[in-house]
Amino acid sequence: MTDETPAAAGNRPLGGTIGQMPWRIPVNPDRPTEPLDPEAVQRLHRAAMRILSGIGIECLNPEAVAILKAAGCRVSGSNVRMDEAFVMEMLGHAPAHFTITPRNPAREIAIGGRHMVCFSVSSPPNAWDLERGRRQGDFATFRDFLRLTQSFNCIHGSGGYPVEPADIPAPVRHLDCLYEMLTLTDKVCYAYSLGPERIEDAMEMARIAAGLSPSEFEAKPRISTNINSVSPLKHDHLMLDGAMRMARRGQPVVVTPYALAGATAPVSMAGAVALSLAEALSALALLQYIRPGAPVALGSFIPHVDLRSGASAFGSPESMRGMQMAGQMARFYGLPLRASGACTSNMPDGQAMWESANSLWSAVQAGANMLWHAAGWLGGGQTASPEKFVMDCEMLQMIQRYFEESSFAASDEDIALEAIREVGPGGSFFGHSHSRARGASAFCAPLTADWRGYEAWAADGAVWTSERAHRIGRQILAEFEPPEMDHKARGELERFVARRKEEGGAPA
Amino acid sequence: MTDETPAAAGNRPLGGTIGQMPWRIPVNPDRPTEPLDPEAVQRLHRAAMRILSGIGIECLNPEAVAILKAAGCRVSGSNVRMDEAFVMEMLGHAPAHFTITPRNPAREIAIGGRHMVCFSVSSPPNAWDLERGRRQGDFATFRDFLRLTQSFNCIHGSGGYPVEPADIPAPVRHLDCLYEMLTLTDKVCYAYSLGPERIEDAMEMARIAAGLSPSEFEAKPRISTNINSVSPLKHDHLMLDGAMRMARRGQPVVVTPYALAGATAPVSMAGAVALSLAEALSALALLQYIRPGAPVALGSFIPHVDLRSGASAFGSPESMRGMQMAGQMARFYGLPLRASGACTSNMPDGQAMWESANSLWSAVQAGANMLWHAAGWLGGGQTASPEKFVMDCEMLQMIQRYFEESSFAASDEDIALEAIREVGPGGSFFGHSHSRARGASAFCAPLTADWRGYEAWAADGAVWTSERAHRIGRQILAEFEPPEMDHKARGELERFVARRKEEGGAPA
Repeated sequence: MTDETPAAAGNRPLGGTIGQMPWRIPVNPDRPTEPLDPEAVQRLHRAAMRILSGIGIECLNPEAVAILKAAGCRVSGSNVRMDEAFVMEMLGHAPAHFTITPRNPAREIAIGGRHMVCFSVSSPPNAWDLERGRRQGDFATFRDFLRLTQSFNCIHGSGGYPVEPADIPAPVRHLDCLYEMLTLTDKVCYAYSLGPERIEDAMEMARIAAGLSPSEFEAKPRISTNINSVSPLKHDHLMLDGAMRMARRGQPVVVTPYALAGATAPVSMAGAVALSLAEALSALALLQYIRPGAPVALGSFIPHVDLRSGASAFGSPESMRGMQMAGQMARFYGLPLRASGACTSNMPDGQAMWESANSLWSAVQAGANMLWHAAGWLGGGQTASPEKFVMDCEMLQMIQRYFEESSFAASDEDIALEAIREVGPGGSFFGHSHSRARGASAFCAPLTADWRGYEAWAADGAVWTSERAHRIGRQILAEFEPPEMDHKARGELERFVARRKEEGGAPA
Repeated sequence: MTDETPAAAGNRPLGGTIGQMPWRIPVNPDRPTEPLDPEAVQRLHRAAMRILSGIGIECLNPEAVAILKAAGCRVSGSNVRMDEAFVMEMLGHAPAHFTITPRNPAREIAIGGRHMVCFSVSSPPNAWDLERGRRQGDFATFRDFLRLTQSFNCIHGSGGYPVEPADIPAPVRHLDCLYEMLTLTDKVCYAYSLGPERIEDAMEMARIAAGLSPSEFEAKPRISTNINSVSPLKHDHLMLDGAMRMARRGQPVVVTPYALAGATAPVSMAGAVALSLAEALSALALLQYIRPGAPVALGSFIPHVDLRSGASAFGSPESMRGMQMAGQMARFYGLPLRASGACTSNMPDGQAMWESANSLWSAVQAGANMLWHAAGWLGGGQTASPEKFVMDCEMLQMIQRYFEESSFAASDEDIALEAIREVGPGGSFFGHSHSRARGASAFCAPLTADWRGYEAWAADGAVWTSERAHRIGRQILAEFEPPEMDHKARGELERFVARRKEEGGAPA
């Protein structure tokens, strides 16, 4: 895999008439937007260190506490205080970049540097679409979202269950879900840190699906997890357990505090970033102590509380600045950075798209390496929508095209002085050889966007964007063909699931 | 007027229950996104100069040709070739920044430097709203858009007629329109360069409305115009005539080639920018020769042709890069830069907002000083919509808030270490004195955005964004009160309009 070369296997069109941009690992060429001056970066760093050494963090996982105590941290009950020297020594072990290789090696992704990969929405309890309205998530809908995840080249993997399938009993849900994720997609999959059985089963299933021995599996990152701290300043038992299990097997862990400014974090962005950093760095230090060099990333997720409704507001200008600040701090610590494509709007309408655009562009401006919830998220993460999924993918395609050097190349051939001379005043570039030579590849092709004038658009039914996205989503699902899978690996995966179900799965 | 201090007079709420951000002249603190390296900037400059010296530009205005000939340019019929030395000497006279002062001095705006001011949509022939659908523009709708222009603090002036009032006869249309613009708003107004009578009448009316003598009027910029070249490489008669008349009276002229990549300009962004630069710089050089130091700005407007429909596509990733390149070139020449808030979508839906967000954010990234068509534009500029106007203003408010230093301030007080210590692990920042002290000003207040959870939103009617924007637009119009105006000036303005109507106005 190289950064700019599409892996040929992944470049199927979306459907009969629906084209799309090629699979690639996007590389962000822009200099990040950096609101903080160097002194402010130092102030934020010092604040995070003072939080960790002076206030400490509550670790509700006794094993983690014991490990940190052995590492020399000051422990008082579940409160752990760690000094700057320890934190910085541990962070020094963290790799600045790594890859994650799913069962199809052509779908390997790169994390860190200037790369920006995109994962589909994860964990909404509800689904909504134009036809059926809102309802609790179910397994059939879960599978449909996996089909969308697989179909779009601009989506590099799953960041969790794209909708929570409430109709599958909790003890075996992870088995059914991982099985579908590993068979309906060949992209990077996700393991929830929700108890030892779930995380170990997920790793085992990823190993089996890829036909790997345990040592081959652990030789490089194969699947990812994300843990959230309980802001302010608390790590829960199961999240830390899952993170430690993943790190021990060399699998990537993203630590993303959910810092709700004005409620679980300071109302000021700089304060929320400082708190968030302290929470994330404490977990990352733990993981690096357990396995130096374990692949990890820093997550930033700072909506703010709406004082009127108590809800979380996403995609605000303040969140954008918070994301950019987090980018500066991630580079200061040499850590890959995770962002999110979040919005507050309950419907795939104008508000949804300006909030999502703000989230996405701030991720670009921050130099984020991973975009979670990049497609399909609605209503503060409470709802997954196929229309929003398709519309988000259009924005992602545009961003990925925006990253391409050809969009801003300015060689003599690009400047086209000869063509300008040949066309001359009053002429036309339409059909000129310079235009023809670049043709269809000159511009990002639309997916749901309708570029026709009003009359042509109205004559064709006057269909708004959400309805067009709905139809495209339906067409993709109707034409979906699952990716190829090794017959033997699939059989072994089925047997594993059956056996673990017989054993009762995981505690609810 | 200072940059950060709101002019108190302009800070009325939008309506009974509709709050808004204060009037201010936004200052963009971000370092621009610069896709071109210094060599590429030089290549684009050299290409523009070679176009002007080697290919030349068609000037369909004989007066302009004669002036340029006298200035030493090489003239052959209507083809004018100008050398780099002449162009650069002339551009050296152009001011890097200037102000425009409308009849209410508290509404003075600053052009250049890091300022970014916003003008409402201009010149669509049609209007559309959720209630009445699409129809040809008329005078009543024209007046409603002026009321929106006046009501929103984030809009700094009119960039033309917000919709073309087809029910007013062409010879007197400019008189009726300017009268409404100058009385329903007290913000910067616009003069169309569509013939000597229209541009002179507009300047005269702006002078009268402000109660100024001719010499007071000419002492500083009071009203603006924009001219478009006819790409490729042609300037028409009336546009140049208007530009020259404005420059002679010290009034600002923006020169904005409409470069449709793949049709009237090269399909490559760098080529389209080079062509566009040559066209704009030739007119700017002419204006600086006529009046050295005349206030001018460089416009960039590079949609691309949709090969399927022949329509112009706005808000694409390629356009974003074109805008950023134009920003680099504007800084190279020391000229203020104009951008546009354009989109292709025919309705105020998801597509409209992602296209507009791309246009707006690329203007920010480019360091643009003026955002034309910043609110209300739909369907490639063929339609003005009050819903889109309100929705765009929400995005503009967010951008203007994003610019504020308080959104990214990171002093010790912002980092809030003491508050973090007091709240401690597991506590809440909700109601803490640090949160209370910042309170409502901590975050950009929503305008149409609904931040409530799904249940509360659904219980309140499940209203989508465009419908909410429609209602807000209606409420603003219902509650509108025109700005104060000097009685004597208004009387004189009425007499001027009556006299000019008697004289027959301007040729159709």
